[in-house]
Amino acid sequence: MKKNARGSIPRKTVYRLSIYFRCLTRLKHNGIQTVSSEALARAAGVKPTQLRKDLAHFGQFGTRGLGYEVEQLSRMISDVLGTQSLQPVILVGAGNLGSALLSYGGFAQEGFEIIAAFDADPARQRARGRVPVRGMSELPNFVRERGVRMAILCVPAAAAQEVANQLFAAGITGILNFAPLVIHGPEDVMVNNVNLAIELENLSYFIQD
Amino acid sequence: MKKNARGSIPRKTVYRLSIYFRCLTRLKHNGIQTVSSEALARAAGVKPTQLRKDLAHFGQFGTRGLGYEVEQLSRMISDVLGTQSLQPVILVGAGNLGSALLSYGGFAQEGFEIIAAFDADPARQRARGRVPVRGMSELPNFVRERGVRMAILCVPAAAAQEVANQLFAAGITGILNFAPLVIHGPEDVMVNNVNLAIELENLSYFIQD
Repeated sequence: MKKNARGSIPRKTVYRLSIYFRCLTRLKHNGIQTVSSEALARAAGVKPTQLRKDLAHFGQFGTRGLGYEVEQLSRMISDVLGTQSLQPVILVGAGNLGSALLSYGGFAQEGFEIIAAFDADPARQRARGRVPVRGMSELPNFVRERGVRMAILCVPAAAAQEVANQLFAAGITGILNFAPLVIHGPEDVMVNNVNLAIELENLSYFIQD
Repeated sequence: MKKNARGSIPRKTVYRLSIYFRCLTRLKHNGIQTVSSEALARAAGVKPTQLRKDLAHFGQFGTRGLGYEVEQLSRMISDVLGTQSLQPVILVGAGNLGSALLSYGGFAQEGFEIIAAFDADPARQRARGRVPVRGMSELPNFVRERGVRMAILCVPAAAAQEVANQLFAAGITGILNFAPLVIHGPEDVMVNNVNLAIELENLSYFIQD
């Protein structure tokens, strides 16, 4: 798929592909071979029209009256997402949250391996579990040599943009940003933000009396 | 503010309020007293028209040619979000990710205090740092007695819906869900999803060649 085609797919559609993929995985585990668009949409929490529209970006799937073949649709999505092989990721900032994420084993199950962490503070430059924490000066060579494209950014807000600039310069093109601020970068990089406090704040707003 | 008015505000607008609030906090720290909508929008990574539209939901702010008073706008947003006092939160599921979040100190800084954790496995029912991990049977009384409204859900996908049902029954109205599946609940509850693997997958899609 060309970069152009890729860029034309809405980010929300790609998020929903991840959800569909997980629903299909559960169906497979339960020995189910075909699923209607209504049933898959319900499991994913979307409308059937949304599901059909999302999948139409990638070709023709499903048979009217029969639905989708679980195995085939699952393979197609995994192909599109590029998650069929384990992808190397680095983590930058081994403070509270960074260390917590290093000790969390859940990424590898999902196809991502944190192969190294980096921190400016020498006191933090020791291994956490199986992951070594290195100095920032080692980052550019490491990224180049290992062909790493993705980084998880867990540095304080005040340092985040500067560290992100170093990551972009080293060749990182995708950042999962946990720092509570907006990261500015070149046109061809992608930054996804996860802010746990903002998620709680958002809940807090909607559940007030 | 009535529930109705609250429900009519788009969730994305409320997310952006959290971002504006953090930008205003940084401006305050830097001793800046007024800010133009252009400058605030740029800091938040949105268009000025978006910022003005978001704020218009909550009243008339800013003076043409002068911009916004940082202190006043900041107070208004914090008021709207209901984050002026520390809010109690429980965490359910003290496995890898749950434990990681318990050891992460960042929530309290942002106005949320995890006052207890719960897990079905007796082997996990010990304190992590200052937070006690209790059995699930203690949950309903605890939630009622302490008036807890928000829960962070970190149980495996297979158990998530059943545990969420227990939370709703106990009076929880807002869930921050880390389990990789869609939680179904009553009309008047709110579920926000954080799925770290899906965020990485989404990045992975967009940075492919």
